Amino acid sequence: MAWNGKDESLENMEERGFELHVGGRIVPGVYWTPKGSKAERLVLLGHGGTTHKKADYIMVVAGLLAGKGIASLAIDGPGHGDRTTEDLSQSPEKFEQAWTKDGGHDGMLEDWDAALNFIEVEKGARPTGWWGLSMGTMMGLPVTAADDRIKAALLGLMGSWGPNGEELMALAPKVSCPVRFLVQWDDEIVPRDACLELFTAIGTSEKTLHGNPGTHTAIPPSEFIDSVNFLDEMLA
Amino acid sequence: MAWNGKDESLENMEERGFELHVGGRIVPGVYWTPKGSKAERLVLLGHGGTTHKKADYIMVVAGLLAGKGIASLAIDGPGHGDRTTEDLSQSPEKFEQAWTKDGGHDGMLEDWDAALNFIEVEKGARPTGWWGLSMGTMMGLPVTAADDRIKAALLGLMGSWGPNGEELMALAPKVSCPVRFLVQWDDEIVPRDACLELFTAIGTSEKTLHGNPGTHTAIPPSEFIDSVNFLDEMLA
Repeated sequence: MAWNGKDESLENMEERGFELHVGGRIVPGVYWTPKGSKAERLVLLGHGGTTHKKADYIMVVAGLLAGKGIASLAIDGPGHGDRTTEDLSQSPEKFEQAWTKDGGHDGMLEDWDAALNFIEVEKGARPTGWWGLSMGTMMGLPVTAADDRIKAALLGLMGSWGPNGEELMALAPKVSCPVRFLVQWDDEIVPRDACLELFTAIGTSEKTLHGNPGTHTAIPPSEFIDSVNFLDEMLA
Repeated sequence: MAWNGKDESLENMEERGFELHVGGRIVPGVYWTPKGSKAERLVLLGHGGTTHKKADYIMVVAGLLAGKGIASLAIDGPGHGDRTTEDLSQSPEKFEQAWTKDGGHDGMLEDWDAALNFIEVEKGARPTGWWGLSMGTMMGLPVTAADDRIKAALLGLMGSWGPNGEELMALAPKVSCPVRFLVQWDDEIVPRDACLELFTAIGTSEKTLHGNPGTHTAIPPSEFIDSVNFLDEMLA
């Protein structure tokens, strides 16, 4: 568990790389802090399937959070990013193999627990939220259900579907913090009805679904901005 | 077509009553303007079934709009408010009878056309939006589909259902302006799936659904505020 020296200064934030050792696995991560502001809140960023901890849109969200004075943290998901040399975008099978590598659902929960523990040891405990869509919800909904340190979650583009669809439906009733849930009305990957079913199963009554036309990745930019406003408000 | 002298000064707006004569019917209406500001935009407010043009929540929305410098206008819907002496809340049959009175769907369209014409003659043409839920969407979706003076619409709590459900589904593809659409996830009056079906049928790609837990009338206050922010932005 240590910073790895891969540090960078970006437009409105500082980036520090780190590496975790979890049950024999090496989990690469990155931590962003807003420049010139003491971040008293933290958001965990779960990237989508076939991408990685520093995917463009994850960096955009980290930057928006930094603009609110919020720190953020991302790790590579199971079999993703620096944890593989495969091109996962080649086939759904490659993605499923990556997900089940590294301990699958249970290993993923251990990885995120280790990541939050690491950053709390280094930087102290702070009001913490989750932001993650698609595979970011395959990770984030279970983490949010299991870890009461998560006080608000931006989820979506996922449903009663995929490699851990059954776990998601079983865990959804245990989510008790406020949730914003995004659905793309013409999602060609995760069926809309499966997404609506997962939203319906979420336990908290403080949940709102935002549905927009378009395919899986065609989320309107305004929803990105709104999602960060939501976390900013909920973690205030 | 004339102001009726029933004027009032409210907290942040001035209220003027008016009366329209449409195809032998008398249509009572009310017009609100923000105090101390020249309203350069207008929103038509469609009230819900069994209520009337000055229902509490309609006044709340008029007040929020006035806070943005936006004028608003409401008329009593078919067989509602000052157009009846019946208590419509007694049974669904009373509501359906009221709706079919006064020319039903077609009469309703004539009433709103006359109301917007009246206010444009009196005050000039301005960027105009619609705000209306439940019966406010039974009126507002057809008005928005028919009248290209409507540039943005807040709709919801209605679906492929009720006295003009077929008309709504037939007209939805013709709605071409930006739409925000509210759904109550535990709606005990209009089935959720019927609401989702109507949202799906709306023609514009600039549409967003906001779904929240709760019964038909249990819309979170934040959605009221957000809905006015939406119209404020779209009519800017």
